[in-house]
Amino acid sequence: MTTIHKVSTRDVRIDLHPGEGSDAIHSNPQYSYAVTLLATDKPGLTGVGLAFTLGGGNDLVCAAAKTLADALAGREIEELMADFGRTTRELADHHQLRWLGPHKGVVHLALASVVNACFDLWAKSRGVPLWRLLLDLSPEALVATLDLSYLEDVLTADEARRMIAAERPTRASREGVIARGYPGYDTSVGWFNYSDEQVRTNARKALDNGFTAMKLKVGSKETARDVRRASIVREVVGPDVRVMVDANQQWTLPVALRACLALAPMNPYWVEEPTHPDDVAAHQTLARAIAPIPIAMGEHVPNRVVFKNYMQAQAAKFIQVDAVRVAGVSEFIVVSLMARQHGLIVVPHVGDMGQIHQHLVLFNHVGLGLDRVFLEYIPHLRDSFVHPAVVEGGVYKTPMEAGSSSDLK
Amino acid sequence: MTTIHKVSTRDVRIDLHPGEGSDAIHSNPQYSYAVTLLATDKPGLTGVGLAFTLGGGNDLVCAAAKTLADALAGREIEELMADFGRTTRELADHHQLRWLGPHKGVVHLALASVVNACFDLWAKSRGVPLWRLLLDLSPEALVATLDLSYLEDVLTADEARRMIAAERPTRASREGVIARGYPGYDTSVGWFNYSDEQVRTNARKALDNGFTAMKLKVGSKETARDVRRASIVREVVGPDVRVMVDANQQWTLPVALRACLALAPMNPYWVEEPTHPDDVAAHQTLARAIAPIPIAMGEHVPNRVVFKNYMQAQAAKFIQVDAVRVAGVSEFIVVSLMARQHGLIVVPHVGDMGQIHQHLVLFNHVGLGLDRVFLEYIPHLRDSFVHPAVVEGGVYKTPMEAGSSSDLK
Repeated sequence: MTTIHKVSTRDVRIDLHPGEGSDAIHSNPQYSYAVTLLATDKPGLTGVGLAFTLGGGNDLVCAAAKTLADALAGREIEELMADFGRTTRELADHHQLRWLGPHKGVVHLALASVVNACFDLWAKSRGVPLWRLLLDLSPEALVATLDLSYLEDVLTADEARRMIAAERPTRASREGVIARGYPGYDTSVGWFNYSDEQVRTNARKALDNGFTAMKLKVGSKETARDVRRASIVREVVGPDVRVMVDANQQWTLPVALRACLALAPMNPYWVEEPTHPDDVAAHQTLARAIAPIPIAMGEHVPNRVVFKNYMQAQAAKFIQVDAVRVAGVSEFIVVSLMARQHGLIVVPHVGDMGQIHQHLVLFNHVGLGLDRVFLEYIPHLRDSFVHPAVVEGGVYKTPMEAGSSSDLK
Repeated sequence: MTTIHKVSTRDVRIDLHPGEGSDAIHSNPQYSYAVTLLATDKPGLTGVGLAFTLGGGNDLVCAAAKTLADALAGREIEELMADFGRTTRELADHHQLRWLGPHKGVVHLALASVVNACFDLWAKSRGVPLWRLLLDLSPEALVATLDLSYLEDVLTADEARRMIAAERPTRASREGVIARGYPGYDTSVGWFNYSDEQVRTNARKALDNGFTAMKLKVGSKETARDVRRASIVREVVGPDVRVMVDANQQWTLPVALRACLALAPMNPYWVEEPTHPDDVAAHQTLARAIAPIPIAMGEHVPNRVVFKNYMQAQAAKFIQVDAVRVAGVSEFIVVSLMARQHGLIVVPHVGDMGQIHQHLVLFNHVGLGLDRVFLEYIPHLRDSFVHPAVVEGGVYKTPMEAGSSSDLK
């Protein structure tokens, strides 16, 4: 029995080195976490939940998380998680705060922080890493943690249980990844504000560090700059390394149509966030026009309903759902289940710097049978975490500490 | 010359009588405004901007509005409004706060409050009501106040200017509405928590007060309750009065398909918010299935991009854009222009209780040529406004005070 006895939040903001984290729209971010802390009756046992922001407004997310999490004080963790889907739905539909979304923006980021704290506490209280906890749950227990409302037209609870159960017999064939680890990709090769020379040096360094995939920020006002930088990376790494380009929503649809064709010769592995993340129709138009170049997106998709629409429209191939932006671990799993249904690939955006997602990607592969296990790697906050993700030779090593690796120093 | 010299915000929360404002999901709202105040160098001349919430989190919207509006201190109002589209785009893309949206939730509500304060100040400084100000602007000056980004595939600035100019020659034929006023509809007939007897009494009272249109809240767990209450209203008011039903997002798509058909015999004028407001695809499916019953929605659509997708999908006929939820007067006009393009009808949701929208509906009809001029009426906050909207015999009378009628006591 582990009971939540005190709820608090912490506003954590971490300065970056110049240029780090910059992209076509976020010129000067301060990587920040709105942290929910669930202290228990057991000394030293605290659930830690993260939501990610770029600094400004991190206090607003903390304030909303406190309001939502206060409802959990006094709850026993196993009892809470046995019916967690219903609880999260009630939190998401808070009779006044819901107006501020619904299911998006500050209140939904706050819910991410609260939900992640509950999963972290659950895994810690059982003394296992999050990926192990999720793999050990029965299909019924796992689905009971999910809010599947508004997905009735594509994914009922029955269907979700059947999907998870269907992967059980073949699990052993995928479990080798636990000992082996899986590839990360280096996002920090070409931040937007980096010079051509920095990009060249970083691409070489990424190769030397064992990475076989890396990302470049594009989305310039002049397509020529994007093409030049992309060509530099391709020239340095050769034809076999995966190079992804990320426009961070800076193109209009007409510009995206032109820019993607201009970038085609360097053979991007995907084009990420080409235009506004709410514009499902524009992504659908673009996806058809630039095929077979695939679109990746999801960093700014707020919830399962919008992801559903993207999938129904066949508007993206790589689903970059982020558990520190959607409503935490459970909505991440919901989106992953829909991606499995639609034959899509989940490669999360890592607002958590991969700390939680290293668990979730492992679970997605072994537990849900999702292919191409692969995860973004951003090392800038390594020193801030108690158990920073270990990436060696470009490979994520499986975390073995209890919980979701979210403890901050 | 009128210069903004001090920016502040005010957190205004107003208690309602029991049952007022209740719907299928918002069980106990406290109508509230996050108010932006732009004090000027002229004594007594202050721009007042509103964003609407249901109480909880109104302080968060105020905090975000303060951060955004601080950038406007020292600006001269005519100079500011001459290029306001660019300014609002910069505010919406604040390099850190943008992450909390983008263009939705708390930060976008905050932008609504700031933008509305600017328009209020502009009209007051010219000594005219907002509707007059908007009608007097040249097409060029009006379009310069708009942020049309991410609409390049449907509405460029050139097209917007041409659309507005094209309505000029026929304006006189529509200006009679200024002296005559236009019909309101009574939303307070059947709040969700009202008893059958209250609904019956209110429907009679609405008729007695001259209303020829009224709304009933549905979205019950049991369709039978919705059908019973809807039948009561139809029985009381007869076949010719417009009766709208509002499910407040409480149906799943499968339930909505059944419930709308069950409600068809009472001939609803529209079905409002049948399911989740992010689910464009579900609304498209439903619209096709229940035609010719039209769908109304927009109360929870956060921005122009999502409205564009709804219009492209032909998923709604009545566009209920609300200037105290989207980015204020200017994004309201952008959505209205798109509705005009697509042959749709704009009947705003009135988080402002109609105070600002009485101006905007008049402008939409006379200035943009939009049809079926018609506006929701909710009297609960009459006592809180300095110049409450005047509705007599079911008809909105044209406001003549300078500004946007947003001053609170």
